[in-house]
Amino acid sequence: MGLLDEIREQPSVVRRMLDEGREPIARIAERLRGTPIDTIVVAARGTSDHAAVYAQYVFGARRQVLVALAAPSIISLYESEPRFGRSVVVGISQSGASPDIVGVVAAARRQGVPTVAITNTPGSPLARAAEHTIDLLAGPERAIAATKTYTAELTAIALLSAALAEGDDDLVALDGVPAALDAALETERDAERLARGQAGISGCVVLGRGYEYATAREWALKLKELARVLADPYSSADFQHGPLALLEPGFPVFAVVPSGPPAADLIDLLRRIRDDHGVDLLVISDRDDARALGNGLALPSGVPDWLMPIVSIVPAQLFAYHLARARGLDPDAPRNIHKVTITR
Amino acid sequence: MGLLDEIREQPSVVRRMLDEGREPIARIAERLRGTPIDTIVVAARGTSDHAAVYAQYVFGARRQVLVALAAPSIISLYESEPRFGRSVVVGISQSGASPDIVGVVAAARRQGVPTVAITNTPGSPLARAAEHTIDLLAGPERAIAATKTYTAELTAIALLSAALAEGDDDLVALDGVPAALDAALETERDAERLARGQAGISGCVVLGRGYEYATAREWALKLKELARVLADPYSSADFQHGPLALLEPGFPVFAVVPSGPPAADLIDLLRRIRDDHGVDLLVISDRDDARALGNGLALPSGVPDWLMPIVSIVPAQLFAYHLARARGLDPDAPRNIHKVTITR
Repeated sequence: MGLLDEIREQPSVVRRMLDEGREPIARIAERLRGTPIDTIVVAARGTSDHAAVYAQYVFGARRQVLVALAAPSIISLYESEPRFGRSVVVGISQSGASPDIVGVVAAARRQGVPTVAITNTPGSPLARAAEHTIDLLAGPERAIAATKTYTAELTAIALLSAALAEGDDDLVALDGVPAALDAALETERDAERLARGQAGISGCVVLGRGYEYATAREWALKLKELARVLADPYSSADFQHGPLALLEPGFPVFAVVPSGPPAADLIDLLRRIRDDHGVDLLVISDRDDARALGNGLALPSGVPDWLMPIVSIVPAQLFAYHLARARGLDPDAPRNIHKVTITR
Repeated sequence: MGLLDEIREQPSVVRRMLDEGREPIARIAERLRGTPIDTIVVAARGTSDHAAVYAQYVFGARRQVLVALAAPSIISLYESEPRFGRSVVVGISQSGASPDIVGVVAAARRQGVPTVAITNTPGSPLARAAEHTIDLLAGPERAIAATKTYTAELTAIALLSAALAEGDDDLVALDGVPAALDAALETERDAERLARGQAGISGCVVLGRGYEYATAREWALKLKELARVLADPYSSADFQHGPLALLEPGFPVFAVVPSGPPAADLIDLLRRIRDDHGVDLLVISDRDDARALGNGLALPSGVPDWLMPIVSIVPAQLFAYHLARARGLDPDAPRNIHKVTITR
């Protein structure tokens, strides 16, 4: 079992989460409905922090709930404690081991606000600190770079949002995700070919917006961890405040642009930077016109925009995996880092 | 008047803000005290978003108030509207012109929650949308890269936090900042010398934590805008989740490490990555032991940690300015970008 196996395991991991995670999450949602909630505070680091970014858009755009991403060091280093008021506090961590994330959840629980742990390790300190635990049911993740626990985290967030909605439409939409993941895995041959063509890059920019900002962040992290490429992720809106200055002929720009409200503006931006600055584009999209802007990796069509991040990260993972290989690196043994990161 | 003049103008800009901004900000704080506030929501992009990061730590660690950084596209693109509940919504923008930031403040005002604009353009759409306006009083900022409006934004945030505190201690501490800025400007010769030595770099990592995470983000943006260096900013905690894999002998790592709770761990981390991976360190600090880890730029001593970001960005600005010059670039004419960025 290596990283590539865990990437390929994602359709079954997400299917298991949908089958077995749905009921426990519905019960947690039922408990949360009973309390007035103004804000969802999410504490997470690394890959799990990108799941938190996804939560910000899903709960914001679909449930009209404000999401605040916690700054754990306010508690762990400055020994201060924000008043959580009418919040639910959610900690997300594969290992559930990092003391600073546990610290946020523990503080919230002491204040009496509802707390939820989303973790692949239900016996972990994070799970023990929280009132409710969502088990990711992803099986042991042995590769250092997280893949299947990330898509499981996104699925847990989508399930929780669906459980807080009126009606079953969101749950029905979620049922289509495992098949879309199967289709996304079929990009592997294209991802490998494109990665070989990019083997010489040293840095790049990764763009996404809205729901897909999480994907841009996670793709950039995989590129750093696995392929040692200095990948800088940006929302396409923030990108126009300054980092545009980096662009020059041949500079690699990667983008995730599925169908949805941000697509038209982002396609315009990509066309402009290609035509004006000669950048080298690689676009992950279900839209032919987006992929035709440069090199493309195809997403399956018909996935609702709010669920697409569970799917769109797959070609990005495959590309990062094969870019590492093309650069002579071992994606199962990234340099300098460990599976469980303990930060105060 | 060019960028370097605006960098050098910062002590007087901050002094003016302290002298003339204090009363209007105290009046706004007085109004805010009358309403129950669980959360401060901040909407901003680019440099102003780094001021928002500073606000997250200042209000969180010093006022025990939760700060949520808004995702403006939830409103502008997805046409959804989070319920702001017991929030104050603050928009920060030099120009006050960007429709997505105005959109967040306008939505909050329609919901009847208190709204504050922090802007250098008091007649702007942002100021008109907000109930209260804090004028940055920085004078016209002509350079494309923001410098004096950033330190003015931090000063406004520090003043607002001080005005919401019991007692005058925080206001008294603020009075020392202009003299510290004068001292920070004296690093220019060192910054120029170190920049010449780094003229050949293509990428780097910029580390900071806690209050100084904002400085790391803003320093990285200046390096991108002015010197076209792919600079990746990280909280030192998140950095250990993956990006550590980038490190190799000679790789440039820049860090902002003033005295304060994060310093000991960060100094340990920097020593470890220097000894284990041979990275090339540049450290901005008031601590001799931190600067002695590699190349150093000195901060004045005696500035409280929560106010140091107003000061610590100055050597970083000077370094980015001189790095641009050393690379044969014109810091007054960064490529591809404009002063006012309009994003939806």
